This record gives sequence, structure tokens and C-alpha cells, in this order.
Amino acid sequence: MRSFASDNNSGIEPTILQAIIDANADHATPYGHDPYTEKAILLLKKSFGESAIAYLVNNGTAANTLSVKAVTRSHQAIICPDTSHMVVHEVGAVANFTGCSLYTIPNVSGKITAAAIEERYIASINDRHNNKVHVVSIAQTTEFGTVYTVEELQAISAVCKKHNLVFHVDGCRLSNAAVALNKSLKEITADVGVDVLTFGGTKNGLLFGEAIIFFRKELAAEFEYIQKQGLQLNSKMRFLSAQFIPYLEKNIWQRNAAHANLMCQKLAQGLAKRADIKLAYPADSNLFFAYFPKSVIAATQAKFPYYLFNEKTGFIRIVTSFDTTDKDVDEFLALALEAN
Amino acid sequence: MRSFASDNNSGIEPTILQAIIDANADHATPYGHDPYTEKAILLLKKSFGESAIAYLVNNGTAANTLSVKAVTRSHQAIICPDTSHMVVHEVGAVANFTGCSLYTIPNVSGKITAAAIEERYIASINDRHNNKVHVVSIAQTTEFGTVYTVEELQAISAVCKKHNLVFHVDGCRLSNAAVALNKSLKEITADVGVDVLTFGGTKNGLLFGEAIIFFRKELAAEFEYIQKQGLQLNSKMRFLSAQFIPYLEKNIWQRNAAHANLMCQKLAQGLAKRADIKLAYPADSNLFFAYFPKSVIAATQAKFPYYLFNEKTGFIRIVTSFDTTDKDVDEFLALALEAN
Amino acid sequence: MRSFASDNNSGIEPTILQAIIDANADHATPYGHDPYTEKAILLLKKSFGESAIAYLVNNGTAANTLSVKAVTRSHQAIICPDTSHMVVHEVGAVANFTGCSLYTIPNVSGKITAAAIEERYIASINDRHNNKVHVVSIAQTTEFGTVYTVEELQAISAVCKKHNLVFHVDGCRLSNAAVALNKSLKEITADVGVDVLTFGGTKNGLLFGEAIIFFRKELAAEFEYIQKQGLQLNSKMRFLSAQFIPYLEKNIWQRNAAHANLMCQKLAQGLAKRADIKLAYPADSNLFFAYFPKSVIAATQAKFPYYLFNEKTGFIRIVTSFDTTDKDVDEFLALALEAN
Amino acid sequence: MRSFASDNNSGIEPTILQAIIDANADHATPYGHDPYTEKAILLLKKSFGESAIAYLVNNGTAANTLSVKAVTRSHQAIICPDTSHMVVHEVGAVANFTGCSLYTIPNVSGKITAAAIEERYIASINDRHNNKVHVVSIAQTTEFGTVYTVEELQAISAVCKKHNLVFHVDGCRLSNAAVALNKSLKEITADVGVDVLTFGGTKNGLLFGEAIIFFRKELAAEFEYIQKQGLQLNSKMRFLSAQFIPYLEKNIWQRNAAHANLMCQKLAQGLAKRADIKLAYPADSNLFFAYFPKSVIAATQAKFPYYLFNEKTGFIRIVTSFDTTDKDVDEFLALALEAN
Repeated sequence: MRSFASDNNSGIEPTILQAIIDANADHATPYGHDPYTEKAILLLKKSFGESAIAYLVNNGTAANTLSVKAVTRSHQAIICPDTSHMVVHEVGAVANFTGCSLYTIPNVSGKITAAAIEERYIASINDRHNNKVHVVSIAQTTEFGTVYTVEELQAISAVCKKHNLVFHVDGCRLSNAAVALNKSLKEITADVGVDVLTFGGTKNGLLFGEAIIFFRKELAAEFEYIQKQGLQLNSKMRFLSAQFIPYLEKNIWQRNAAHANLMCQKLAQGLAKRADIKLAYPADSNLFFAYFPKSVIAATQAKFPYYLFNEKTGFIRIVTSFDTTDKDVDEFLALALEAN
Repeated sequence: MRSFASDNNSGIEPTILQAIIDANADHATPYGHDPYTEKAILLLKKSFGESAIAYLVNNGTAANTLSVKAVTRSHQAIICPDTSHMVVHEVGAVANFTGCSLYTIPNVSGKITAAAIEERYIASINDRHNNKVHVVSIAQTTEFGTVYTVEELQAISAVCKKHNLVFHVDGCRLSNAAVALNKSLKEITADVGVDVLTFGGTKNGLLFGEAIIFFRKELAAEFEYIQKQGLQLNSKMRFLSAQFIPYLEKNIWQRNAAHANLMCQKLAQGLAKRADIKLAYPADSNLFFAYFPKSVIAATQAKFPYYLFNEKTGFIRIVTSFDTTDKDVDEFLALALEAN
Repeated sequence: MRSFASDNNSGIEPTILQAIIDANADHATPYGHDPYTEKAILLLKKSFGESAIAYLVNNGTAANTLSVKAVTRSHQAIICPDTSHMVVHEVGAVANFTGCSLYTIPNVSGKITAAAIEERYIASINDRHNNKVHVVSIAQTTEFGTVYTVEELQAISAVCKKHNLVFHVDGCRLSNAAVALNKSLKEITADVGVDVLTFGGTKNGLLFGEAIIFFRKELAAEFEYIQKQGLQLNSKMRFLSAQFIPYLEKNIWQRNAAHANLMCQKLAQGLAKRADIKLAYPADSNLFFAYFPKSVIAATQAKFPYYLFNEKTGFIRIVTSFDTTDKDVDEFLALALEAN
Repeated sequence: MRSFASDNNSGIEPTILQAIIDANADHATPYGHDPYTEKAILLLKKSFGESAIAYLVNNGTAANTLSVKAVTRSHQAIICPDTSHMVVHEVGAVANFTGCSLYTIPNVSGKITAAAIEERYIASINDRHNNKVHVVSIAQTTEFGTVYTVEELQAISAVCKKHNLVFHVDGCRLSNAAVALNKSLKEITADVGVDVLTFGGTKNGLLFGEAIIFFRKELAAEFEYIQKQGLQLNSKMRFLSAQFIPYLEKNIWQRNAAHANLMCQKLAQGLAKRADIKLAYPADSNLFFAYFPKSVIAATQAKFPYYLFNEKTGFIRIVTSFDTTDKDVDEFLALALEAN
């Protein structure tokens, strides 16, 4: 099967798989007291800057949930866009684990602005009958594949600093954002004042694995207990950690994301030849939402599965991944452009 | 490093690793809607009987926590031995996720008896100021490596049925128990009236992966939501599931456990030549606790790490695994027997 | 101070206070094993019908929270209006205790319709990545003081039955609704298919005290443990329970609510003489929202405090209570009508 | 009924009841923004010292639960005696709300020592597989009616300071302890280094009401939200608060406790005339455990109910309260001493 449904339909990048195979030698101390984990943590520090304190967990829901849990108490609230994965795709795991409320702001192309955050914050303050706002969480890239600019991130960070809020970024596709902005990982996180981050691996070539990164020491306090209680301390941790070594050391995060982004743009540009296809938002990274005419859907979806959210309007989502091939894209475009 | 510290110091069994490699072809639908997961679930049903409804999770703490969460509400209590992993090694994850209290019973060689459970149950009943007992949880093999006999399991099951309690088994080393008892997996679970089970993979040759098995349909109701909210629905589920296919289809669970048990017995029997070494409990499966004289510890621990719990008494634990070699055992015995 | 800010600014109705004084004789068994509690429970059964199983708790947040907790598990969701007290005024207590998500529907005059509930339900179903809808919760009277008709309640109940959802009513002002509809308590709850109800006392003349009423036995299972764990089992329960005896036996619930409603209507009708005052919603019960000109606010708010939500639009709320006097109303009207 | 079963069988002290009646005048701002609450908070500060930050809640379980919740996170543990009310009488409310584990130490006459706490602490430290010890909680008086001396409290406080642990005292009968030690409330709390305290009212003459007192500002941070989310912010707060005014201003806490203690001692001394009655622990305050011969139980229990925990050994508990009369004691003694 060749799929454009999601980047988590993809497999394991060969270098990453080899790292797992290579780690399968001899015995190793479990629960992260092994040289692979030690090295992965150091490489994350190298990539995200000296302030970065990193932990590895199994999946994206876990990364979001435990990173927010670490910095909140149950009477607090998290401001986030109404499209936030935390709100609509994780069976309420963040709210469930933290006990916090999620205060949503209507998104604009998947984003929320510093001004809207400030307005929501001020509307909530000084009232013990509502949760106390404590965190702002955005996704970079957004759930619509759009990318916050450095200036937008700085503005959100400034609001957070002003009101003593924690700035959280769901970075399950952070690599795609860095590539899209032509910035380093550090430049779009530590350097713009992000406090807590999740950094994705699974959607970008790993078997499984996401990092949680704290940029302030006090936010990471006692996190090793939270990780274990939060069901994220595997015994054979080396096989999770070993993947992050080539991912960072050999810049596979970048290479894979660059390829996925390129395939996405190639697709979007190719489809632009049809006047009856409209992108819903800019194709900034490795996914886009669009309106497809019925004929295009009929011609493509069976061979290359993707999400069709609304049969009437033809509202669809296309996602490319590190292992999307030129052939995949060319075949898809051929089918789409010939359909009538 | 060659270690006797824990069976989770071991690596990935080659057939299992090959299954991961083989599953890394093409795209696959995520979140368990893939042929590997489908087949793994079927094979679990085949091994544990028609009533078995199975789900796969990342690690043992997750397996214990979510399997208990599925069958409890927060005002209830779980009766378990004071040695239960839930009590002493999981940062209170079970209590934290379920909100339940754990009512411990002093163990005898790692086990608790039907009679002691009944006594504890009756002591608690009909008093709204204490949690309502709802579950009995034991580990098979126990944390001390001992193994409940079929008769002991039946007796516990009978108490559970009598008082309408759920019988939960932490089977992170269930394979070792089945081999030790020379029984099938079904004979020591479904057939003795177990209601909910965790079935370990990680300690017995998998990269990662444990199964949760419900033997009554109503106990599994809506579990797919609990799994996702409980941070255990990986997107690339196929790589978790693919491991269970040879594990069950090729009886690797049995072969690996049989080897680990054999190595353990060889070690125990070898050490028995020293009159100053005493086993704390019978070496029923793949681990034992013993009292080692200082000289033996000095001679062995540096080369083959294992747990020393008490320097004064020399109280230690030795664990073998599927990849413990005859050479490991022979070298260890040579060092231990020559020490003085 | 004379206040129109809320009915919980009121005191204790004299008959209720006398019941407390009378209960202060001799010793009594604590934790609800006393004759006052026994009688209160029976009277609630008499008022709400044979199927009613009642418990008493301290306040409205507790009543909402524990009544919902009793009927949910953490992966489920509760459909409610966006104005629900659970969502905006209880520091997320319901979400926090239950672990559930709250799925809000935009209100129309404080209400939601059966059709909107069905639409929201269908949008959520069959997707393990979202919470499973399990409860519909409305408030009667609504937070805007409007009252669901019997037909509206029946329609919501029918949707709940159709999809096997629990129908929950926040009845902190249920008495005012019953009076407004000229129905008995049973006719607007048990008879229309409500499954779980909170029945308010505090806002309607009690020192403190709310009832939780289950109309299906299985929903109340083991609730005595949930009540105690939920911090709602006072030791001197008799003083909470004793208040419900005259409240029900002497129909004080009705008399007090009828008076409060009457005062509200008198106020609303009096204010209607000013063309520049507009009610936001119908004044169905004992509170209304309206737009006041600046001059009216200036003339009245200092003497008779009430909520001003928006200085620009003059959006205000007025609430009357059992102890609002004709003099209060006349003075307020005089000030309001003369203002310019 | 005249009862020695518990001090919560008692009613409302007349001065306290009058304070409720007096507070029932006019309207008052709800949720604690009233002059009664303001004054009660100030009087608590006066009694417990300038560092005291106080909040009022409905009952003892709530006081224990929220005071511990305020100072913990879910991966932490609380060291307490195995007799702790938190462990055995609150349906696990503390564990449930906080997510923490309770690490129990075997009590000696209801107490635990600084040395035992240190030993338990050291046994747990530096191991991410167990909860991180963060709080020590004791009850003063203990569940057996014994009283920690100032020196014992200072020693426990010193261990807490040494290891950066929070010192929590369940003071549901603190008044009885202060009287027994002939100390002020401050001398046995703030002055010995207690960090968080519950201060009981219900068992000592109030209709209902307990105080939570924080002695360090940072521990009380945002507690107003925790109180509300924790179901403990009644709307008509004035009636809870008003009781604490005479309780503190007129030293009713002391007078009531002194009387209860005196009655207890009179009882204990009277019973000492029988050689076949043995106290299990010293009768330091207002309750004692003893072994009664069958004849004494037969002669007394029907008329004056009290707990009989073990029919064989005759193990019983007697509790006196502020409204125990000399007549009650004399009649009981007459029955007990004449029994044969």
C-alpha cells in the first residue's frame, strides 16, 4: 500500500532500523541507564542548546500529556487552539492526566495569535470559579500543516513571559517546521523562548519515539518519576534511545523532513494545474488540506488512501512522509490531473 | 556486558527482530488497523482460548495499570501481596490511574493464599469508610520467582467467584510459569478462572510489548478508548504487533522461557555445592533469591552484575534470560565455587 | 445589604433554621445513620417517585461532580451547553473528578435541543481517538433563567434513550422550574426520563445542602463509597438532612421558589415600563439577564448589588430569592424608573 | 441517646449555634467574600501566629485531602502511621485526589518516631521506581487518643527539615491535644515547625467545619482554586465561618476540649477500680481503647453505645465529647463497676 493518509503510515528509515539492530548486542542496563540513552540525551542537548533537559517517551500522546503534566497542577488551565491535538484526538488524555481544563481559541489557519491569547487570558484572570490559566500550547507545524514564523513565536513567547505562563509546543512535526523555515531546531524553540517542547520522531522515520524537552530546570524537577508513573519508562530503553542517535548525529530528522516537505510541495504545485482544486491553507510543510472535485477523489483515493472529511465539499487531507517517492507523487498527479 | 541483574537486560531474540524488519515494508494503516495487529490478536485468542480479548501495550507497568483500570472504579480496592510490583515498583501507577487503594497481604514465598484473601476481604466488607474490595491481583511467576500451582490458582479463583471479585494476574513472566508447570498458557489462565491477565513479551525476547487479555467480554468494554487515553496506542502499531506473531506462532515464548528456566536451575544446582549458599525460596522459574557469602559476591558481581539487597546478610537476586548462555553459567559457577 | 446578585446571597428560611435547632438534641449516630437522614431520603422518594434513590451533599459543585462521576468512566464525554456551570464555574471539578471531556454545544437562550445533541453525538461516534459520548447534561432552570418545557425534556430524553446515553439534569434551581411550569418535581424529572438529577436546596432557603437523585438503581451502585471518597459525607449529617424534612414535608421548596419567581416577574414587568431596558431572555423563573442603560445602573447597583458583565452594553443579571421582599422590589423599581 | 461511640455523635455547642442564628440576617456576598469569613481567617491567624494562612472546609476528610493535595504532586509519597485516618477511614480520598502513595510505618501507641520516619525515607530515596517521599503526616491527637509531646513533634520536624519534607498534621482533635499538653495552639504547631495543619471544629462543638492552615506562603499558592475544585467552597460560606468566631474569640475550642478530656479521665480513673479492665494506651485526651470483660460490655453498651472491635478480647473504644455530662459518666461507671 502507498498512502497519503498520514506520515505515520510510513515505516522505519533504514539508518534508524540499523541503529536498532546494532544496539541488539550483549546485555544492557535497563530503564535508561545505558550508553545509548546517555548519548541520545547529550545529542538532544547539542541540538536544542545547553538549557535542554530531555526525556524519551513512546508516542505523541504520551509526549504531550507528560510534558504538560510536568508543568501544571489540576486547578490550572491550558490555552490552545480549538484544533489542538490535545483537544480533539487524544481521548482527553492531557485533561485526564493533568486534571486541567483546556481553554480553546478559534484557530486561524491552524494558528492562534499572541493577541488572542492575551485576550483569553485576561478574560479568565482573578476568578477562583474558573481554572487559572498557566500554560499556552501550540503545535508547530500546526494540525493544518501551516508553520508559525519566528516572529509569531516570539510574540506568543512575549505574552507568556508577561503573564508568567508556560509556553508549550507540540512538536510532533517540528522537523518539518524547521526545514520549512530554514532554521535550526534551537532557533525555533530555545531561542524564541519555548519552555517545554515535544520533539517528534515517529512520523519522521523512527519505529517509535518522541522526546520531551524542558528548557528550564525547575520545570523538569522530578520528571523521572512522572515518566515512570506515566507508563513511559520502557525497560529496554536502549532500543528507543538508539534511534535518536543517527536521527540527530546524521541529521536524518532534517533529511527526512526536507524530503517529505519537498514531496508535499511537488504535489501541491502539480495539483495547482487544476482550477477546480483549492488549497484550504498554505502547503507550508508536509501536509495540506484541500477541496477536491468528486472526479479527482474517485480517480485517486482507492490507489492512494487519504482522508476525505466531507463528501459534499470534497474537503480532504494529504500527508507526505520521508518515504514518499517521486513515483508516488507522479502517479498520484497523473491520476488527479487526468480525472474528469 | 553479561548480566544476571534482570531478564530485561537481555536483547531482542533474532526471530523477533526479523519480524520487525519484515514488517518494515511499504505503508500500513496506523493505530492497529493493520494485518500484523489483526493476526497477533487472533494468535493470542488461539493461545488463550476463544474467550480471550487481547490488546497490546508498550510495557509492563502500562499492562498492569490499564488492565486494572478497565475493571475498577476509584472507590474500590485491589487485594494483592505486599511484594506486588504494583505496590513497590511502579511509582504508584496503578493507584494513580485507577484511584483505587491497594490492600496488601503479607506474602509467603511471594504468594498469597485463597484463605488470606478471604480473610482480608471479610475484614473490609460492609464499611463505606474503606474502599470496596473489587479485585484480587497476583503475579505468576511471583516477584520471588516462585510459581502458583494450578490448585492454588483454582482456590484463589473460587474465592473471587464466591465474592464477585475480579481475578487479575500480572503475567509479565507467565511464559516461565507455564514452562515450569508444564502447562499451556490457557491451562493456567482461562481454565483456572482468571478474568484479566497481562502476558509479558519484553522480558522474554521482544524489543518491547506486553498483551492485556480479558476473559470476559464485559470487562473489555470500551477498552480501545482506555488504551488510547492511557498513552498505549502507538501509531506504528505494526512493529509492536509483528513481534507477537512468531512469539506465538513459532512458540518462541515457550522456547525462550524454557531456556531461561533451565539456565536458572543449572545455576541453582551448581551453587548448591556450596554449603554456605542458601536459596531464600525455591528456584521454580528463571530467577532466585539467595544468601551469598561475601567471598562469592566479591568473586562474581563485578563480572556478572546482579542485585545485592543487603550487604550484611548477602541477600541477592539472580535472573536468567532467553539469551543467557551455558558459558555465562559455567563461568559464573566457576567463579562462585572457587571463591573463598 | 439587600442584593440581587444571586439567590445564594440569601440566608436560611426560618422553618429550615428551626429544623436545625430542633435536631440539636441529644447524641446521634454520625455519617447518615440517623433518623433525620432516613426521613429525608424517604421524603425525597415520595417527591420524586418510587424509583428515586437519594443522597445528600454539601453544595452544588459537589452535587454535579459526584452525580456525573457515578455514571461515567474517564474515557467518556458529556454533552452539555457551552453555558453549563460545569464548564464555566466549577474550576473544572466535573472534568477533574471524572477524567471525562465536556463536549459543549452552543446554547440558545441557555438551552440545547434534542436535535443538536443528536448531531453532536453522531459526529463523535465510532472513533477511538475521541472520548466516547456517554452523558447529556442540561440545567433546569438554565443558567439564563429560562425553563425547558416538558416537551423539550421529553425530546432530549428520547435522544438519550435512543443512543443509550445517561440524561443528567443540574437542578440547583429545579424548584423554580417546577413552579414556573406548574408541575410537580416528579413530573419534570422521573416522568420525562431523567436518569440522574441534582436537586438544589442552598439557593432556595437552606443553610447548605443539595440532593443527588438516581432514577435507575444500577446508576447508584456503590455510591455511598463515591460520596465518602468525594468529601461529601459529613459526620454530623443530621444537620444537613434535617433541613430537607420541612423543605419537602411542608412544601417550602415550592413556597420559596414561587415567591422568588413572583418577585422576579414583578421586577421584570416593572422594568418593562422603560423602553430602554431590554430582557436578553424570557424571565421564566427567578432570574433574568438584561441590558440596562448607564443611568439605571448608576441609580441602582450601589444600593442593590447585581452582576454587570459588560460596562459598554450594560449587560446585567438580576436574581431574586425566597427572601427578596416587596420592599426590595419596589425600592429597586423606583430607583430604576426614575433614573435618567 | 447518650453515646460514647464518637465525639461526632455530639451536637452543636449553644454559643456556636447562636453564631449561626445571628449570621442569618440580611443578604451576604457568597463564596467567602463576607465579613464572617474575613474575621474567622483573622482569628485563626491570631491563634496560630502571623504565618498562618487559613481556609475553611466542610469536614475532616476534605481537610486532610485538600491540605495534602496542595503540597504534593502525583508521583510523590506521604509517610504516615499505619493507623492514619487517611489510610483506613477515608475510602482512599487522599490517595485518590493526590495520586500519591501512602507509605505506612507501624505505629507505637498510635505514634511514629522521627527515627522510624528517617529510616523509611532513606529506604525509599534515589529510586525512580518508587514514589518520591515528600510529606510526613501524623495525627495530633493520634487515632488512639495519645498525644505527641512537644519534643516528639520537634524531632519529627527536624527530620522533615533535614530532608526537605513537608510536615503535615491531621489536627481534627488538635484542641484536645493542646489542652492535654497545656499549650497554646501555636506552641504545638507553628512553633514546632509544622508546615500544614488541619484544625478540627466538628468533633468539638461545631455544626460542621474544619480549618486548613498553611504555615508557609508558597504552600498555599493558588489554594483558593484547589478549594473550589475540591468541592469545598460553599456558597453560603458565612454560616461555616461564623462558627469559628466564638470558637476562637471566646476560647470555646479550649473549654470544650478541656471538658471532653476531663470526662475521659474521670471515666478512665473510675474504671481503674476494676482490675479486669486494662487500658490499651494512655488516656491522654478524650478517648481511650481498653479491654472490657464481657460482663461490663453487657452492662453498658446497650445504654451507652461505643465501639467493640473484638468480641473475644473485648477490645473497645470510648470517646467523650464537649457535651458528655457528669451524669453520663457517673451512670456509665455505676453500670460498669457493678457488672459481674
